[in-house]
Amino acid sequence: MIFVYTGNGKGKTTAAIGQAIRMIGYGKKVLMVQFIKSSKWPSGEEKAALSFQPFFKIKKFGKGFVLLKSNLQKHKEAAKKGWEYAKKEIESGKWDLVILDEINTAVGLQLLKISAIINFLKKNKDSFIILTGRNAPKEFIEIADLATEMKEIRHPYQKGIAAKSGVEY
Amino acid sequence: MIFVYTGNGKGKTTAAIGQAIRMIGYGKKVLMVQFIKSSKWPSGEEKAALSFQPFFKIKKFGKGFVLLKSNLQKHKEAAKKGWEYAKKEIESGKWDLVILDEINTAVGLQLLKISAIINFLKKNKDSFIILTGRNAPKEFIEIADLATEMKEIRHPYQKGIAAKSGVEY
Repeated sequence: MIFVYTGNGKGKTTAAIGQAIRMIGYGKKVLMVQFIKSSKWPSGEEKAALSFQPFFKIKKFGKGFVLLKSNLQKHKEAAKKGWEYAKKEIESGKWDLVILDEINTAVGLQLLKISAIINFLKKNKDSFIILTGRNAPKEFIEIADLATEMKEIRHPYQKGIAAKSGVEY
Repeated sequence: MIFVYTGNGKGKTTAAIGQAIRMIGYGKKVLMVQFIKSSKWPSGEEKAALSFQPFFKIKKFGKGFVLLKSNLQKHKEAAKKGWEYAKKEIESGKWDLVILDEINTAVGLQLLKISAIINFLKKNKDSFIILTGRNAPKEFIEIADLATEMKEIRHPYQKGIAAKSGVEY
């Protein structure tokens, strides 16, 4: 089963985390592989996940949201490493849900190839996989069992509020 | 700070739960007051919340999604009880986030009055409050710091998949 959370609004990653918590409540095991996001910044979800070990594991493979042409290779390598890890873990069958956080973004930035991901997902439709991030390619939406577009109606930055721990990360 | 998660797509309640987990990761305290949803059906999030006590409390005040004219009064009373409880808890200042789950739905079904809620929210804009549910009234969106519409692009029921524990509740 494949879910896609996309769009420019808030709630994509948090919806995936909420889904994870719901599963964990039933004694299921959840892995979240984070693309783009860098391990330099620990997040609230990572801290909370520690309480749920071994039921909730979060692993980051990103180098941050700022992409400069000069270090594109570094980002590509990180994304590739994350994808190889995710494939292995999904195929292992030991997770009841695998969240590929920001994979839509990684594909949009051409850090990963759509075709390789689609081929893999088609072979693993029995796994429960959630793909998050803006601008999900139409191929992801077509293959999905469920897709939600999170559409921004109002945003705090419009009002001049800065990103806050516990809210944004 | 007021967030609104609305729309016909999946991810509203789960986004609120994910936000809760993020806060809890920073040692913050979260209360989720659930309207409409009945305590007859324990959910994954309730089971998981037990691991986080006293940081995460979920309290249900609903009588289920099926509303018949004959028992409308029962639903109204339950919603009113939930709202009175929520107000008291928000005003107590002991929670860093209070989620009013399905309150948009409760208002849409005229179980609660918009004006009373708006007046209260205006007085408590320093509290962090999340309102979820379909068809949020425009008054809620206008008062919100952030609002996301979860828009359904694809839904599993279109493919004939039934509601599943850990996924839908």
